[in-house]
Amino acid sequence: MAERNNMTALEAAEFLKAHDGYLILTHVRPDGDTIGCAAGLCRALRQAGKEAYVLENPEATSLFTPYLEGLLSPQGYEPDTVVAVDMAARGLFPENAKQYLEGVDLTIDHHPSQEFYAQNTCLDAGRAACGELMYDIVQLLGGITPEIGEALYVAVSTDCGCFVYSNTTPATHRVAAQLMETGFDPYPVNRRHFRTKSFKRLKIEGMLAAGMELRDNGQTALVFLTLDMLREVGAEERDIDDISAFVGQVEGVKNGITLRELRPGECKLSLRTDPGDLNASAVCALLGGGGHAAAAGATIEGTMMEARQAVLEAMETVRKG
Amino acid sequence: MAERNNMTALEAAEFLKAHDGYLILTHVRPDGDTIGCAAGLCRALRQAGKEAYVLENPEATSLFTPYLEGLLSPQGYEPDTVVAVDMAARGLFPENAKQYLEGVDLTIDHHPSQEFYAQNTCLDAGRAACGELMYDIVQLLGGITPEIGEALYVAVSTDCGCFVYSNTTPATHRVAAQLMETGFDPYPVNRRHFRTKSFKRLKIEGMLAAGMELRDNGQTALVFLTLDMLREVGAEERDIDDISAFVGQVEGVKNGITLRELRPGECKLSLRTDPGDLNASAVCALLGGGGHAAAAGATIEGTMMEARQAVLEAMETVRKG
Repeated sequence: MAERNNMTALEAAEFLKAHDGYLILTHVRPDGDTIGCAAGLCRALRQAGKEAYVLENPEATSLFTPYLEGLLSPQGYEPDTVVAVDMAARGLFPENAKQYLEGVDLTIDHHPSQEFYAQNTCLDAGRAACGELMYDIVQLLGGITPEIGEALYVAVSTDCGCFVYSNTTPATHRVAAQLMETGFDPYPVNRRHFRTKSFKRLKIEGMLAAGMELRDNGQTALVFLTLDMLREVGAEERDIDDISAFVGQVEGVKNGITLRELRPGECKLSLRTDPGDLNASAVCALLGGGGHAAAAGATIEGTMMEARQAVLEAMETVRKG
Repeated sequence: MAERNNMTALEAAEFLKAHDGYLILTHVRPDGDTIGCAAGLCRALRQAGKEAYVLENPEATSLFTPYLEGLLSPQGYEPDTVVAVDMAARGLFPENAKQYLEGVDLTIDHHPSQEFYAQNTCLDAGRAACGELMYDIVQLLGGITPEIGEALYVAVSTDCGCFVYSNTTPATHRVAAQLMETGFDPYPVNRRHFRTKSFKRLKIEGMLAAGMELRDNGQTALVFLTLDMLREVGAEERDIDDISAFVGQVEGVKNGITLRELRPGECKLSLRTDPGDLNASAVCALLGGGGHAAAAGATIEGTMMEARQAVLEAMETVRKG
C-alpha cells in the first residue's frame, strides 16, 4: 500500500519540476474539474519544457473534449510519471486507466473522501474545485498562458455551478479573478457551460413542467420522467444529466421528488429536501435506498404511480417520526 | 443645470461623511443593483451615525423588498441630502421620486449613459454593477456588517447574472470575495436569485419549448408566446420577465426569435443574434423597430403567423445585404 504522503502545493510543484514523461489521468463520468485540471496541468508541464500527455477518457462528452485537443497521449506512449487529477478513489479509474491503479506517482485532489492510493498525494479538501488547488501548483511551474487560464477556469467554475453552489468561497472568486487576468475570453466559456441547453433537454424539461404535481401548499413537487417521454424526444443520457435538480428550482418548493422510469415496473427515485424540514436519507432508507440529508435516492419496484404512492407514504412515515 | 462634477469614490465617501439626513432613491423597474445599493448604503450611513432612509419604490417586487425592511422613509420625512443610486437618467425616476428631480445632491452610478442630472456624480462606467463602486465607497465609511455585505452582494451578483455575463471582470470577482468575507450566508441569496423559478414560469417555458421551431440546421429558433398560453397558466408579468433570453440558450442556436402576442393582431418581436452572423438591429429596423446589433425588437401588426413570416423575410433581406 502506498504511504499517506500529503504534499503541499509547493511540494507538488517541486515534484513536477523534478520529473518528466507525464501521463495525466481523469476520472470516470468526467466533469469540468477533472478535464480542466488535466488540460491545464498538461499545458503547464509542456510550458515548463516537460513531455506531457493526457490519457484519453472514452466517456468525455463533446462539452469537454475540445479542451483536450492536441494533448492526448499517442498509442503506445510509455509514461515515466503518472498523475491523477480530481480522482478521489480507486473506483473512479476508467477502464483504460486501470493498468495504472498501483502506479500513480502523484494525485492532486480536493475530495475529503480521498483514498490515498497514490505514492504521493496533494490534497486540499477546503477547495471548491480541484482547479483552485491546481492554480496554486501551476503558478509555481511558471507563466500561466491564456489557454491554461481557460482550462483551469472551466475546472473551477463548473465545480461550483458558476459561483452559485454552497462550496463557493472567497478563495474561489479570487482564483477566478486571477485566471481571468491570464487573458482568455471567459464569455464563450460561461455561455457554453452555464447558459446552454440541448433542444432535447428543453423539451424534456417542458414535459416535466407540464406534468408537475404540487402538494402541501406548493412545498412538495413531483415530476415524472417516463420512458415514453425519452423516446418521444429521442433524448440521450447527456440530455437528462442532473435532471433531478430541475424540480428543486420551483419557487417555494422544499421537497423535490423526481421519479424516473428505468424499465416498465422499475423506477428511480431522487429526493431533494430542505434537510431542516425532512431528512431525505431517512425517507429513502425506508424504500431500500440511501444518501445524504438533503439529497437521496432509491430504486423502487412498481409502476410510476405505485412508486409515487410509496414515496409519499415514506415521507409521511418519516414526518410522523 | 447641475454642473458635471464627477467625484472619485474617496470624494463621495467624504461627501457622505460631511452631510446628514439622507434619503436614497432607486430607479423604475427596480433590479437587484439599485435595491442592493440603496439598502447597503442606507445601512452603512446609519452605521456611521447618520439618519438615513430609502424612498419606497412602488414597483419593487417581493424578490427585493425584504432587503429594504426597516429602511423605508416614514410619511412626511424631509431629507437634507438626497442620493440616487444606479440611476442613469431623469427618465428613470419613479413617480414618487420626481419631486427630487432637481434636488439630487449625489448620484452614484456605473452607466456610461449617465445624464449628470445631480449636483454631484460619482460615476465609474467600468464597473459591472453599481454595487462594485458602492463597495469602495461604503468601505471608506467604516466597518461593513454582514447585512451590508449581503445587500451589496445582491447588487453585484444580480447585475452580472451571477458572474456569467460579459460585463464580469476580475474586479467583480474580487469584490464578491470581499463581500462574502463580511460574514453573511451567500447560499440562500444565490438560491433565491439564480436557482429559483416560479411554477408558472416553468409552465410557460415548457410551452415555449414544446412549440419551438428550429430552422437553418438549428441555427435559428423561434418561440411563440400567445395570450392563450398566458391565460391558461395565469402568468403575470413577473413570470415572463426577460423571457426573450429563453430561446437563446438552445445549443447551436445563433438567432433566437421570440414573438409575443400583445393583443389579437399585434405582436412584439424580440430578436437575439450572434452579431457576427446577423445584425439584429438592421432586421428590426426593416420592421419599424430597433436596438443593438445583438439584441433588438419591433412591434408588428398582424397575426403571430404573419409576424413570423415578416421576421423571416426581413432576416433574409438583411442576409442578402
